[in-house]
Amino acid sequence: MRNILILGVGRSASYLVDYLLNVSAKENLQITIADISLENAQKLAKAHGRSKVVLLDIFDVENRQSLIKNTDLVISMLPAALHILVAKDCLAYAKNLVTASYVSKELKELEKDVEQKGLIFMNEIGVDPGIDHMSAMQVIDRIKNKGGKMIMFESFTGGLVAPESDNNLWHYKFSWNPRNVVLAGQGGVAKFIQEGSYKYIPYHKLFRRTEILEIDGFGRFEAYANRDSLKYREVYGLEDILTLYRGTIRKVGYSRAWNIFVQLGMTDDSYVIEGSESMSYRDFTNSFLAYSPYDSVELKLRHYLKIDQDDDIWYKLMELDLFDAKKKVKLKNATPAQILQKILMDKWTLSPEDKDMIVMYHKFGYELKGEKKQIDSSMVVVGKDQTYTAMAKTVGLPVAIAALKILNKEITSTGIQIPTKKEIYEPILKELQTYGVHFNEKRVPYLGYNIFDRGA
Amino acid sequence: MRNILILGVGRSASYLVDYLLNVSAKENLQITIADISLENAQKLAKAHGRSKVVLLDIFDVENRQSLIKNTDLVISMLPAALHILVAKDCLAYAKNLVTASYVSKELKELEKDVEQKGLIFMNEIGVDPGIDHMSAMQVIDRIKNKGGKMIMFESFTGGLVAPESDNNLWHYKFSWNPRNVVLAGQGGVAKFIQEGSYKYIPYHKLFRRTEILEIDGFGRFEAYANRDSLKYREVYGLEDILTLYRGTIRKVGYSRAWNIFVQLGMTDDSYVIEGSESMSYRDFTNSFLAYSPYDSVELKLRHYLKIDQDDDIWYKLMELDLFDAKKKVKLKNATPAQILQKILMDKWTLSPEDKDMIVMYHKFGYELKGEKKQIDSSMVVVGKDQTYTAMAKTVGLPVAIAALKILNKEITSTGIQIPTKKEIYEPILKELQTYGVHFNEKRVPYLGYNIFDRGA
Repeated sequence: MRNILILGVGRSASYLVDYLLNVSAKENLQITIADISLENAQKLAKAHGRSKVVLLDIFDVENRQSLIKNTDLVISMLPAALHILVAKDCLAYAKNLVTASYVSKELKELEKDVEQKGLIFMNEIGVDPGIDHMSAMQVIDRIKNKGGKMIMFESFTGGLVAPESDNNLWHYKFSWNPRNVVLAGQGGVAKFIQEGSYKYIPYHKLFRRTEILEIDGFGRFEAYANRDSLKYREVYGLEDILTLYRGTIRKVGYSRAWNIFVQLGMTDDSYVIEGSESMSYRDFTNSFLAYSPYDSVELKLRHYLKIDQDDDIWYKLMELDLFDAKKKVKLKNATPAQILQKILMDKWTLSPEDKDMIVMYHKFGYELKGEKKQIDSSMVVVGKDQTYTAMAKTVGLPVAIAALKILNKEITSTGIQIPTKKEIYEPILKELQTYGVHFNEKRVPYLGYNIFDRGA
Repeated sequence: MRNILILGVGRSASYLVDYLLNVSAKENLQITIADISLENAQKLAKAHGRSKVVLLDIFDVENRQSLIKNTDLVISMLPAALHILVAKDCLAYAKNLVTASYVSKELKELEKDVEQKGLIFMNEIGVDPGIDHMSAMQVIDRIKNKGGKMIMFESFTGGLVAPESDNNLWHYKFSWNPRNVVLAGQGGVAKFIQEGSYKYIPYHKLFRRTEILEIDGFGRFEAYANRDSLKYREVYGLEDILTLYRGTIRKVGYSRAWNIFVQLGMTDDSYVIEGSESMSYRDFTNSFLAYSPYDSVELKLRHYLKIDQDDDIWYKLMELDLFDAKKKVKLKNATPAQILQKILMDKWTLSPEDKDMIVMYHKFGYELKGEKKQIDSSMVVVGKDQTYTAMAKTVGLPVAIAALKILNKEITSTGIQIPTKKEIYEPILKELQTYGVHFNEKRVPYLGYNIFDRGA
């Protein structure tokens, strides 16, 4: 019997564990689930005959190393910063490793040793990063193999709420880490290339320079630019590409309203608001507006940010109780970002019956025999409930499939890997289709980076 | 004969040296001027019989210590970061020290030792900081002595160009460090109190929340908030004050136009622009605007930032050649802020015949016998030429006067000092008046923090 060790089972582990347990008899697997919460682990293991549950504090070196030593492959679903502990043990005991996280600098430093031992450390094989890499490379390789030359690549992903659970004016709920949503776009300029020119968007303009996307059956979405658009240039073999842009998807209207928070300064995480604990939501809002002995917080905000009387933004702000004088912040020494997060969590937390949704959209522009062409490709995955989320599915399934294929020596590329090679993405994408994770491709006239604002 | 040692004579030393040489016979002084440029030192020393010129590399410990050991008082006009070297030597050889810079953390750590040795290390005795402290404390102490209770203090300073040399649309030229002007307001939220409420302005809104000031004979000015308004609360004994605000003065219209650079992202110093060296000014501007195969950089900018056809901002931008396709940046791996600084220096560098101007404005609100009152106090100093600048006068004279008074034991408060005590500010302000550095005070009705936007 072969053993797979899963370290850490948070919100994204349901599909991962189910997949492996489902194939465990046929593939002769034992699945060991190690977590800091025995309850969490047991819930996922479902007392399955081939599951085993272990209580593990990841900083307990002896226990951790003993588990890793006695398994055949390790899947780490721990917080990203902890993978390196696991990776070093995997290296020491010569075990293959799979994670859904970005390759960190520390991990990259192990590359030579991993290669030398003939090991596979597969990373970035969740949804973003993961399915984005695989689905993009599949089309890019196909275009190149036909003799096409890539001239544009745009790629967008968003974790959203499913249409059937979409019951607020923002059309958004937290299916990812709320803190990351509040801080999104901060910490550096957004940089990308359009038609060969480098373009830079400062944070305070980011949410006003969105691009519109349309997906059949799901309507219109918008996307704001990620900071890191250029880092995939070499990874995807797009060194000469004229337009390269990556973005985050929201429902139309979200970014324009979010910009209000940015303009006020409510997303700032760099300083503490005086007396935050006893403030009302209204006080918090007022602390970003000039003092007036006469005027209301409402009118001051409307005037300051030029919000028209009939602008839908206004109702979005009202919905969040931003002007409520009774609701208290109740957070001591909190930054504006922490307070905003609390205000949003009051309204944007998924209910037990809510469903999430993952949306991905790629645009591939290329030249073939002197003609410019474009393929748009999109994926929508809707969750079942708060255990079987779209997030858990799109992160967990590729991880599980990759793990099994590595164990079965169907994936053989050694070293620190991400799934950009055909050997890796082709079989995984194929199998994902059988689970309803698939891309709709359509040929469109080459429109370039922006389908609006045409004209002489 | 008593010796005063001046370390470092940059742009602000002309009045300082002249003052001391003028009194040198009467006061029996020898003035030793030590600088890394012998030429600089000689120019200022004017071969005066009581001046002595020394070539000094401040990092040459032996030479530095020998000079300090053999003098009676040290004036350091070096860059602020270098004062600590001098301070430590002054402590070792028991010499009094005068600087025009802010008290650094490192300097503060010497406090006990300075006290123990009965030494005076006088700092922040230039213009801002310096004359602002003295002129504010004089009025605050007077109000308090009459039994008044301070309820508002606002203080504004600006280094500008004199009206007779004001020949550009921005009404601004660089009389201070250009880099500091480009980066002004960055690195943290602007925080202050208005009528008892803490208020926060993020950087991207700073230049749109100015306050208007009017000075008889000089017209209207505007001021944007400094980051550090609250740090003088205790220093000035204003712990219970309801409104405390410090700002930087510009001529009206400057901030609204400067905001265009902020909105575009041109003041960012945190990343490097790709291919900056070979870019034109127009390319630089365009890198912050969306790509368009049809539209001009001009129209894209106008549309993006909603600049009306007839808005004066436009002519301010044109004046800087921001859309010039021939002028090249010629700076390798430059940040946006570095490139913007270069563009501005083309136009905003003072000509040899240009005069600078220092403007200061205080508002004191207080309650006396149940009545709210207000005093406004302002100072304008205009330079003579590029050697005898208003900056050199307002920095150098208080430094020189303080140095002599310390030497003559008229100022006796030991320790790390700033000029907030009556013993210090009273005689210095009085003597400054004889040099034309004086404040015009006027009683005004108590208007609170903002004289505009009144109404029910």
